[in-house]
Amino acid sequence: MLLRLSTLFVRTLREDPADAEVASHRLLVRAGYIRRAAPGIYTWLPLGLRVLGKVEQVVREEMTAAGAQEVLFPALLPKEPYEATGRWTDYGPNIFRLQDRRENDYLLAPTHEEMFTLLVKDLYSSYKDLPLTLFQIQTKYRDEARPRAGLIRGREFVMKDAYSFDLDDDGLAASYEAQRDAYRRIFDRLGLGYVIVTAMSGAMGGSRSEEFLTPTAIGEDTFVRSPGGYAANVEAVTTVVPPALPYDDVPAAHVEHTPDSPTIESLVARANELYPRADRAWTAGDTLKNVVFVLKHPTGEREMLVVGVPGDREVDVKRLEAAVAPSEVEQAGEADFAAQPELVRGYIGPEVLSPNREGGVRYLLDPRVVTGTRWITGANKADHHVFDLVAGRDFDADGTVEAAEVRAGDEAPDGSGPLELARGIEIGHIFALGRKYAQALGLTVLDQDGKSRVVTMGSYGIGVSRVLAALAEANHDDKGLAWPAHVAPAHVHVVATGKDQAVFDAAEALARELDGRGVEVLYDDRPKVSPGVKFADAELLGVPLVVVVGRGLAEGVVEVRPRAGGDAQQVPVAQAADVVAGLVRAALAR
Amino acid sequence: MLLRLSTLFVRTLREDPADAEVASHRLLVRAGYIRRAAPGIYTWLPLGLRVLGKVEQVVREEMTAAGAQEVLFPALLPKEPYEATGRWTDYGPNIFRLQDRRENDYLLAPTHEEMFTLLVKDLYSSYKDLPLTLFQIQTKYRDEARPRAGLIRGREFVMKDAYSFDLDDDGLAASYEAQRDAYRRIFDRLGLGYVIVTAMSGAMGGSRSEEFLTPTAIGEDTFVRSPGGYAANVEAVTTVVPPALPYDDVPAAHVEHTPDSPTIESLVARANELYPRADRAWTAGDTLKNVVFVLKHPTGEREMLVVGVPGDREVDVKRLEAAVAPSEVEQAGEADFAAQPELVRGYIGPEVLSPNREGGVRYLLDPRVVTGTRWITGANKADHHVFDLVAGRDFDADGTVEAAEVRAGDEAPDGSGPLELARGIEIGHIFALGRKYAQALGLTVLDQDGKSRVVTMGSYGIGVSRVLAALAEANHDDKGLAWPAHVAPAHVHVVATGKDQAVFDAAEALARELDGRGVEVLYDDRPKVSPGVKFADAELLGVPLVVVVGRGLAEGVVEVRPRAGGDAQQVPVAQAADVVAGLVRAALAR
Repeated sequence: MLLRLSTLFVRTLREDPADAEVASHRLLVRAGYIRRAAPGIYTWLPLGLRVLGKVEQVVREEMTAAGAQEVLFPALLPKEPYEATGRWTDYGPNIFRLQDRRENDYLLAPTHEEMFTLLVKDLYSSYKDLPLTLFQIQTKYRDEARPRAGLIRGREFVMKDAYSFDLDDDGLAASYEAQRDAYRRIFDRLGLGYVIVTAMSGAMGGSRSEEFLTPTAIGEDTFVRSPGGYAANVEAVTTVVPPALPYDDVPAAHVEHTPDSPTIESLVARANELYPRADRAWTAGDTLKNVVFVLKHPTGEREMLVVGVPGDREVDVKRLEAAVAPSEVEQAGEADFAAQPELVRGYIGPEVLSPNREGGVRYLLDPRVVTGTRWITGANKADHHVFDLVAGRDFDADGTVEAAEVRAGDEAPDGSGPLELARGIEIGHIFALGRKYAQALGLTVLDQDGKSRVVTMGSYGIGVSRVLAALAEANHDDKGLAWPAHVAPAHVHVVATGKDQAVFDAAEALARELDGRGVEVLYDDRPKVSPGVKFADAELLGVPLVVVVGRGLAEGVVEVRPRAGGDAQQVPVAQAADVVAGLVRAALAR
Repeated sequence: MLLRLSTLFVRTLREDPADAEVASHRLLVRAGYIRRAAPGIYTWLPLGLRVLGKVEQVVREEMTAAGAQEVLFPALLPKEPYEATGRWTDYGPNIFRLQDRRENDYLLAPTHEEMFTLLVKDLYSSYKDLPLTLFQIQTKYRDEARPRAGLIRGREFVMKDAYSFDLDDDGLAASYEAQRDAYRRIFDRLGLGYVIVTAMSGAMGGSRSEEFLTPTAIGEDTFVRSPGGYAANVEAVTTVVPPALPYDDVPAAHVEHTPDSPTIESLVARANELYPRADRAWTAGDTLKNVVFVLKHPTGEREMLVVGVPGDREVDVKRLEAAVAPSEVEQAGEADFAAQPELVRGYIGPEVLSPNREGGVRYLLDPRVVTGTRWITGANKADHHVFDLVAGRDFDADGTVEAAEVRAGDEAPDGSGPLELARGIEIGHIFALGRKYAQALGLTVLDQDGKSRVVTMGSYGIGVSRVLAALAEANHDDKGLAWPAHVAPAHVHVVATGKDQAVFDAAEALARELDGRGVEVLYDDRPKVSPGVKFADAELLGVPLVVVVGRGLAEGVVEVRPRAGGDAQQVPVAQAADVVAGLVRAALAR
């Protein structure tokens, strides 16, 4: 393949696009790989499409090697299957919905569990047909509230989704492992670092679930790791629950006047000033903070919820949202408070909440608030707090919720040591779904004994276009992109500099020679462009090997230099094709 | 590639699907290539996806060879560009529309002229950047009123669309020719017969336009050919207009009582009975039939229209629709007639129509109704007709319209002889669009003199998934599909028959040997399936070469037979791989 920059449909831009927050977005646009068509919706230009095709091909090969068979579903789908599983409602405003000319409801599919389940039901009926794993590489849609970071969170994007079908749990475990292994091979081949973390299943249902995250500071997912090997998405971290405490010697709860104490900080100061504790000073960890939220259920219904956490921790809304999915979480507004006059803002205490009072707002506690723990908390009256309020003696809640922030140094739930926090981009997600979809849609097969059995399923996704962005994020510098050889739009970027016709002739000959040997060449043959602009473009475009045919030609050499850094070498023209082809082969073999 | 039928995700069906009218639809579903997901929306199963990929690859290679560069646009697009060209309205109910969560309007694109125009405007600015041709292979959407025939008229389908950009008319002509040539090579390589016919530009605008039709009795397009080489879509056929006639000696028009003459046939009979003509009998061609329609404009507005044609021809609604596009044509209903009481059904004459009467309904005439022609037509009064009504003397119309049916034997408009009619499927369509889109969207470049020039464009489409259906239509018999080697899902179908382990071992060895030589093998390794079922499946699936390993093995031979017919040969096992690989190579080289 030989692409000439004089005719290639690309324009590099010197200015960053106004809406680009992250390097991959900025550089993919500036280098002419993608172009925005609408918020979160991009057009693939020739160079971007080449990279996308290469990423897809790695995914396709490893899926096929893992025994998965490729199919292709429509993106435009009827409502009914999604209604049968409840997801038509559960997705709320996050999917694109439309009607056809006969006013039938359709959606643009964000994921295809229902359709795969129905297809297998349609064609298969016996245990002998299983196990089966199918996959597709397809355009998917999500009406993101905040599309951002270019391809990282888009509204139209390319995904690989795979689905496994097994008779029993052991089969599902094997299919899950096979996909997990395939994912490892895919990301290894792509040269993309990753961490596998335990994840919540969220709206998908199911039992086991893991995410593949590629660590990067600009990632929108936070994950934790322990020295002993625990790794989880922050939403999936469970709190180490302390044992219950005896409370026989705790005095009865007593309400105190605490003027000017609307915040935890001022409350602690006021408590230490007016009601000092004998053994030690009060700290934020002695207070119980009751935070009011509104859950927006997929049906559109709004419900108030109070979450009680120790005052030294904030509520992590993403953790709360994961815990209450598919409902969404909003801050409570004036109207919400007006409807619940018993909630005294800044001074809310358990007394007025369910189950401590009939008709009270639902109340969920951080798991650390075990029986016997004693708290300073709101007394449901302005400027007053209650002291020595004991969980399990003086108040109860409707349950616990994993909503408090996870902090560096927190213990890993499996006892493998203190957690550290990091950020990453989710590039893959695997779920052992179990029988939820098969049950809802009636996918059964006859087993060895002729008995009908509900099939058990797994679901496995890779964000293909997002992986491309993650690769750009992991492979760039301040001058531009620097692709790994496997996914680069070309293997070699030949730059002809100067005005000398001999230079262009030699560069042309080299480009053709390399093309003839199966090397993919991008040739900058533009006649009236300065060397400076050509070098800057080569650095921006990020082809891994740059060959400069220019001044050195008079001495019979060309310069060969790796884009990502490393020494440039002067190579005799006669050997240039050999040397370059050898370097390309070596890079592809890695 | 080695696919095993024991694990391949396919189920052949013995029954035709209830909704399948045509062979390609019936067989692609029965052979497990595609599966219906919703009306006009299909899922590609593994075998179907393989064929689709091969068709796409031929298209991609020839586009690239013709100098076109591949990009990929979103399917979900904002309204604004389509509003700027008027197509948001023009498409009427034929596109899928939706709103995102912010209530912005979007569409699922049926074709991408606007987006390509804007992209080129975005990146290019000089005549030096031209000529340019871009293409994509992409999923497209049309909300067809009557999806039918499986992949032939679907609502979600795969298209290749290409767009050329030139500075001047000569450039456009050259780009148009390059695409036209590429289309010829594509259909030649695919082995799909085609006729290139002159077409209407319809809603696309533009000057020159041709369709590639593959002739087949089940085609929904009618086209004409003349012995002298004229070929046109029936919508594009223009009538040979006779010269005007002198009418000095025609008597004044006279109204006559014509009881019981509601049809042309009864009118002719009544006229010959009551008002016989001296020189010859009246015929249907002497009558002028005024047919009432309602135009539904894209804005939703309804307008009545009367079309006058000689009584020996029907109005061809598809021709009329092409002539009035983007408006749609409906039959006039009771309410329409009630609103125009001057129209006496069955007896409508020009007198009450525009421009013969103020406020009259719009009136368009067949081009044969030239000045001086004399007619029997309605007298706008029940049971009465007017005789000797002369065009240009006694009545006028608002213009002419190409709406009368085209008949075999009609003269070709270029004088190349009488027309014959045939049916075909439109598989490609090329348009010299001109400057309509560039003008509407402001795509200009600076020319050699630094002057701003509006770019001229062409648009070139191939219905990729439809081509697959057309190939199935052209390559089948009553037992199943019979693919040409280039697009078949595999090159060879190896069938192991019987229960003998030696047979399965030999078949397996042959399948592996062929796979190792790069032959694509579908291997029927199912252990407990009868030879009859296996042969029927092989015939249904349509792989071009069938190799039977079975009873003959005892004598050391296997049977090699072409699926499409021709002699079976007994080949010694030891030579089977050589012979089969040779046959495959030969078939692919054709």
